Amino acid sequence: MTGRLIECVPNFSEGRRPGVIEAIVAPFRGRPGVRLLDHRADPDHNRLVVSLVGEPGPVSGALLESCRTAVASIDLRTHRGAHPRIGAVDVVPFVPLRGMPMRECVELARDFGRRFNRETGVPVYFYEDAAMRPERRKLEDVRRGQFEALCREIGRPERAPDVGEPAVHPSAGATAVGARRFLVAFNVNLATRDLSIAKAIAKAVRASSGGLPDVKAVGVDLADRGMVQVSMNLTDHERSPMHLVLERVRAEARSRGVEIAETEIYGMVPAAAMLDAAAHYLQATAFEHSQVIEMRLLDGETDGETGR
Amino acid sequence: MTGRLIECVPNFSEGRRPGVIEAIVAPFRGRPGVRLLDHRADPDHNRLVVSLVGEPGPVSGALLESCRTAVASIDLRTHRGAHPRIGAVDVVPFVPLRGMPMRECVELARDFGRRFNRETGVPVYFYEDAAMRPERRKLEDVRRGQFEALCREIGRPERAPDVGEPAVHPSAGATAVGARRFLVAFNVNLATRDLSIAKAIAKAVRASSGGLPDVKAVGVDLADRGMVQVSMNLTDHERSPMHLVLERVRAEARSRGVEIAETEIYGMVPAAAMLDAAAHYLQATAFEHSQVIEMRLLDGETDGETGR
Repeated sequence: MTGRLIECVPNFSEGRRPGVIEAIVAPFRGRPGVRLLDHRADPDHNRLVVSLVGEPGPVSGALLESCRTAVASIDLRTHRGAHPRIGAVDVVPFVPLRGMPMRECVELARDFGRRFNRETGVPVYFYEDAAMRPERRKLEDVRRGQFEALCREIGRPERAPDVGEPAVHPSAGATAVGARRFLVAFNVNLATRDLSIAKAIAKAVRASSGGLPDVKAVGVDLADRGMVQVSMNLTDHERSPMHLVLERVRAEARSRGVEIAETEIYGMVPAAAMLDAAAHYLQATAFEHSQVIEMRLLDGETDGETGR
Repeated sequence: MTGRLIECVPNFSEGRRPGVIEAIVAPFRGRPGVRLLDHRADPDHNRLVVSLVGEPGPVSGALLESCRTAVASIDLRTHRGAHPRIGAVDVVPFVPLRGMPMRECVELARDFGRRFNRETGVPVYFYEDAAMRPERRKLEDVRRGQFEALCREIGRPERAPDVGEPAVHPSAGATAVGARRFLVAFNVNLATRDLSIAKAIAKAVRASSGGLPDVKAVGVDLADRGMVQVSMNLTDHERSPMHLVLERVRAEARSRGVEIAETEIYGMVPAAAMLDAAAHYLQATAFEHSQVIEMRLLDGETDGETGR
């Protein structure tokens, strides 16, 4: 697998029937240019979250096949689960990973949304970077009131879909298709039991209260470990790199007389985020990602003749 | 390219004739399972250094083809160049990269050496981890006196080849085949013009004078940049990781009242070395390389069903 890479994390409203789950996941298996990294079915949420990485074309193709199965197999009129949802194919976020500007990822998301609507009749809303209306950037606004409210309100101009007729698909509802940056889940555990300190630091570093751009943060109690945590999502690790975020948290903690015990990187992380942190701390000012053997293998670069 | 990965850096005694250079490199191009990362021909050294990465079987196969061409095209009796050499195919080091213990890499090197000898008649010496005699671990000992001395001395028991008859190939000489760890070239530039400080720090950190294991270090003057450098080769970045080496150099420098200006990572580096540095400085104690998306893509891992 070489060249341009995207991640896609489609969420389907089915977390209980193994046969349906497997039929939805099947198109992602053994397909050139597509790698199924993970899938998690949660019966309480009644939801399936799939994590795919691959080349844009093959991922879109496999996704369309999978989504047709979901539309044919899931009925929102009888669907119950703890997680908010508007459709059988609930959300489809596209994430640029390598060799792909966000602009192209937005095009990919919109192309996919139009094809999906054409083939299934399910109305589509675009969100985050793919949003066509500013008030639709946030997924929670698109999904407000869930399937049940959308059935009543889709005829209103403010709830008209971006693609398709202003009517929900009778059984499969509607679908939100987005483009967004990779989200790095980064938690910093503090050597104190004082939750107020974690909360104060979270407030100091998060973007919404004037901290670091593209950082979401909350203070969390880890009572059984005798620590508190600044739990963060970095929604743009290039603008606010992990090392910068960590050092800001450290400075805030020290000003309160507290040290960092350890950190947690939760789930997957792009190589670029880790390499940038390594180069920063190693003070390797001229370091380039292409010096890493594994990055060269993925880049599909041809050999450069460097002889004189 | 997935699964087990090795690097191989064959050195050929030809740095001047473009047609011969291209014929030697050609078997590495467009071959499944083999990636030609780089090749450098140096006319002063009259030497070609090729950098390959790939799966063990395909790399060995392509290498054999390339080496046959080199043996047929290079005549050591008329070869002149600044770099020491014993043969047309001078050295062939195999380096384990991923999913491959050193033990298997040694087997691969020895298998290759035997096949190469069988097909070309060139006698082979094994060095470093592939050495069959302890006094042959160091390449410089195997290559002592170069082609010219070896022609006279190969009949002596202490210079008998590990594979093949005790006679050099008339035109292609002999070949050293080795297995070794990846060598990370890591230089630390100090904010001082005092070369004696760089030399003292180099002495303090290098293995040969009781410093860190698997670290080679010398002090170098960077006169035109107004700095001095501790220039290092890390021959086992797992035993002496980059961050540990850097912090040792920093401590030695500070004890002499000097700060680190910056560092240089020269050439290629394995992802693991950078990820270990990032995890250390980010204090991500439970971090695993498999959390990096790109590492998963290269691992060829299948999806793990993580649903409950």
